[in-house]
Amino acid sequence: MIEPILKEGERIDGLPAQNIRIIQNPDMFSYSLDAILLAHFASVKGKGSGLTVDLGAGTGAVGLFYAPRVTGQIKLVDIQPELAEMAQRSVMLNQLADRVQVIQSDMKAIFDVIQPGSAETVLSNPPYFPLNDTTKTNNDPHYEMARHELTIDLPGLAQVANKLLKNNGKFYMVHRPDRLADIFAAFAQRKLMIKRVQFVYGKAEREANMVLVEAIKSGKPGGVRIMPPIVAYTDTNDYTPQVKTILYGQAWSK
Amino acid sequence: MIEPILKEGERIDGLPAQNIRIIQNPDMFSYSLDAILLAHFASVKGKGSGLTVDLGAGTGAVGLFYAPRVTGQIKLVDIQPELAEMAQRSVMLNQLADRVQVIQSDMKAIFDVIQPGSAETVLSNPPYFPLNDTTKTNNDPHYEMARHELTIDLPGLAQVANKLLKNNGKFYMVHRPDRLADIFAAFAQRKLMIKRVQFVYGKAEREANMVLVEAIKSGKPGGVRIMPPIVAYTDTNDYTPQVKTILYGQAWSK
Repeated sequence: MIEPILKEGERIDGLPAQNIRIIQNPDMFSYSLDAILLAHFASVKGKGSGLTVDLGAGTGAVGLFYAPRVTGQIKLVDIQPELAEMAQRSVMLNQLADRVQVIQSDMKAIFDVIQPGSAETVLSNPPYFPLNDTTKTNNDPHYEMARHELTIDLPGLAQVANKLLKNNGKFYMVHRPDRLADIFAAFAQRKLMIKRVQFVYGKAEREANMVLVEAIKSGKPGGVRIMPPIVAYTDTNDYTPQVKTILYGQAWSK
Repeated sequence: MIEPILKEGERIDGLPAQNIRIIQNPDMFSYSLDAILLAHFASVKGKGSGLTVDLGAGTGAVGLFYAPRVTGQIKLVDIQPELAEMAQRSVMLNQLADRVQVIQSDMKAIFDVIQPGSAETVLSNPPYFPLNDTTKTNNDPHYEMARHELTIDLPGLAQVANKLLKNNGKFYMVHRPDRLADIFAAFAQRKLMIKRVQFVYGKAEREANMVLVEAIKSGKPGGVRIMPPIVAYTDTNDYTPQVKTILYGQAWSK
């Protein structure tokens, strides 16, 4: 195994619960609680031998945190060469090269390398902000592409996810609650039936700032389950016991 | 004022926080926490002088609990003669006959008596169960009509609410979370933009069993706010302090 070498400005962050380490560069892009909660929220079909695709994988956090739960192949797809290269080094760092591949590609062109209808599971922590939302722009270009819908929007993402999935395959996505109407509309248009939703509230008395969504391809309509609330922080700004269990142990199932 | 007389099987239930009493017949239909939380969730536009319509009002709980917060007219609409008659007696009991009217009508025929585009606020605690959901049938016929979409379904309700409202008027509804995809689809089709959603969880670690929705007629798309979670019961099956405040005091704004 080739030991990955950290480049200037990079560091290694770890998720103790999954014994996974991710090479990060805070100047370019860092994963956050979103990625961890998505990898935790996603279910595993059967023994987890099916194909998993992480769309807009960035440095690979979601797919790599999910990897210990399954036995099958995982493909991490990101359009940005620098992030894909970092993800590749994290794959090596975690000794997962036998079943995790990094694909540097626009996800809309992914069917050149991944067969339509071949995925059991699609994961995505996509850009949150619409193009016309300019309140957060003027950052580093890597952040820009990861945060704003420059290269993929919600209808486009739903289309790619739907085409990748087998019938009854599952799509798991983390997003902002303020996009909820857009999410329901985009998913409904692509026959991705939303089955399970979980809201994350920064504090118990605050509005939700994150939403986790599970949808099934060609599933029956109706029957959305709203899972118990996740509250991230206590009044004294510590992680709640609920979130600590996800970060440090026990709460992850195979 | 004519003192309302209770008929056989009826009782009077009260909401201390609003000093409102409702005549109920548990054999026919009873309001529950849903009605109280909806009346509390709804906002008041300006000084509350605009018209409010309660669609599918049953015994009038939602509209009557909302009444002390506003100064304008309130119309309680229900298709069932027995429930409308009970609602009328509750209006008298609460001495609100000067500004609360009961209309016994199919809501689809409501434009014979209420001008389209005249309502500032529409409230509704509609039937929750689709017609094809037969798991809860075989009850009393009054319960049946109040619980199942026999006379109105979600797209029909959204159409009536939309037509009743002024531009920028608000529609407030309580429903079951499992219908969330149907709600987003029906509202989007009628240009009712969902702006605020609040989930009610029976207990902190349970799935949500109720959803409160605020939509604006002809509002801008996007921008859904997910309000802080409401947890109804403690681990020892008491109402939480959060809900007690709504039932018994202080938490109601004009």
